[in-house]
Amino acid sequence: VTEFELIARWFTPPPGAGVLLGVGDDAALLAPRAGEVLAAATDTLVEGIHFPSGSPPRSIGHRALAVNLSDLAAMGAEPRWALLALTLPALDERWLDGFAAGFAELAARSGCALVGGDTTRGPLAVTVTVLGAVPAGGALRRAGARVGDALCVSGTLGDGAGGLRAAQGDLPPGAASDALRARFELPEPRLALGRALRGVAHACIDVSDGLVADLGHLLSASGVGATVEVDALPTSDALRAVCAAQARELALTGGDDYELAFACAPEALAALGAAGVALTRIGTVEAAPGLRLVDGAGRPVTVARGGHDHFA
Amino acid sequence: VTEFELIARWFTPPPGAGVLLGVGDDAALLAPRAGEVLAAATDTLVEGIHFPSGSPPRSIGHRALAVNLSDLAAMGAEPRWALLALTLPALDERWLDGFAAGFAELAARSGCALVGGDTTRGPLAVTVTVLGAVPAGGALRRAGARVGDALCVSGTLGDGAGGLRAAQGDLPPGAASDALRARFELPEPRLALGRALRGVAHACIDVSDGLVADLGHLLSASGVGATVEVDALPTSDALRAVCAAQARELALTGGDDYELAFACAPEALAALGAAGVALTRIGTVEAAPGLRLVDGAGRPVTVARGGHDHFA
Repeated sequence: VTEFELIARWFTPPPGAGVLLGVGDDAALLAPRAGEVLAAATDTLVEGIHFPSGSPPRSIGHRALAVNLSDLAAMGAEPRWALLALTLPALDERWLDGFAAGFAELAARSGCALVGGDTTRGPLAVTVTVLGAVPAGGALRRAGARVGDALCVSGTLGDGAGGLRAAQGDLPPGAASDALRARFELPEPRLALGRALRGVAHACIDVSDGLVADLGHLLSASGVGATVEVDALPTSDALRAVCAAQARELALTGGDDYELAFACAPEALAALGAAGVALTRIGTVEAAPGLRLVDGAGRPVTVARGGHDHFA
Repeated sequence: VTEFELIARWFTPPPGAGVLLGVGDDAALLAPRAGEVLAAATDTLVEGIHFPSGSPPRSIGHRALAVNLSDLAAMGAEPRWALLALTLPALDERWLDGFAAGFAELAARSGCALVGGDTTRGPLAVTVTVLGAVPAGGALRRAGARVGDALCVSGTLGDGAGGLRAAQGDLPPGAASDALRARFELPEPRLALGRALRGVAHACIDVSDGLVADLGHLLSASGVGATVEVDALPTSDALRAVCAAQARELALTGGDDYELAFACAPEALAALGAAGVALTRIGTVEAAPGLRLVDGAGRPVTVARGGHDHFA
């Protein structure tokens, strides 16, 4: 199998909307719609850093796209196009079958057309760049949270970090561990919620590095602070079943959840029920800078670490 | 230095045209101009594969962008925006100074704004994604070469491969080796030529994997063949001075030149003189498929290898 056969066999998808020229030339040619703003994001997954060595290839293909689509969700953007840069130590056809299937399945149901890429030899790593579209003036940003806003999160927190432990064999086997592992290996970007938050949320971010770290970015970009009640953080039955002692810490600082955290007027929350994912109010935006964590009785809670930093 | 300080210090450039929101949110927000088509390309450079270990960081930053801009040049597109995914084994401030300077210098004079990216830890690799703009219907493609067209290349061929040998210490030191090394380490994407070829060239490709391989792609996409006279291939004085015996082979199959190869009506060539780079006619497009190499006397020439394949 040559490099060109590889592209032809695994990475030449059907034509997508707005794609004038897809995989196979020096560049793809794309036609944005008039008046639309494009959202562009790129993220790299490196073996042994972002996923355990030996992870299922379907998971790697899915996650490489999902973590990028999560960035589009956080902007309220609809996915359009993706470029895939894949660095492989060797050409393993079964591995590529799984990787390409994981990528293509999520791309197809997200309306995201693979339009270009690069394959090269080297230590296993995947960089995906996504382009999404958002109506002019409609994008969500990290800046914009207002004093008095409700701080909210989608889904449950801590499952990604619990799922990584499950994938590494650090949790007792069983249905709860399997459920957590699936949350880590096949995260679901909150694209429908992101679109529903347009015109509603004042600020939004995806929870990829851990709630404390990511909320910190949102608050600092908005020039505000917040109090978050840690007993209100939504956690799954599975996480509490197999990580009971660490559930709160994982919900606060674990990464890889790919939920959305956002600020909106408290009265707007009720109207957001239709986005297909549970929403939980976890706190309130305040004028004083900084993130204050309290328990149900209002006592301060401290956490050991503030989130993930690759170079810390 | 944290990951966020790293981005703030090295990778937060001044605002660019059409950039509604740059580095620092979940995604960049970009405003394409009405009616414009976007060209999108991505390429990865891996240490030890695409550049020697210990290469000057300025060269790595420059090349990571240049190889992508070369893809835009081959489409006739004008650079607009770039995203940078940088994987580093460690945070070395002097290395980052050089890398960022090499990237930023080329970006600034190419009109290409860095709008987003990702930094992570792992084996040294750089993936850049570029977005360029081209008038609707104006893009150059690999397909479109016509029987009777002149086949042409810009600049000189083989210098990139010669320069890699120089960088690895495989050539005698001196001015010629230094000149070749500069061609490898700081290649110049042919952006002005690409724009000048709009409406003139019937097909175009950049010479990144070697002339024989890249011309093969152009011919096969166009459904034609060609005869190329190898004695007509343009080579530099520097290459002939220090690689005399291999100059022809390097010009045919060496990679990393980032010149443009294109097909146009023979009478159109004279009008292209103003693009700031020498152009040489090297052959003629013919109906019979395949690439035929001949010497000045019309005798067939064979080459040992047909270009670069990472997985061959």
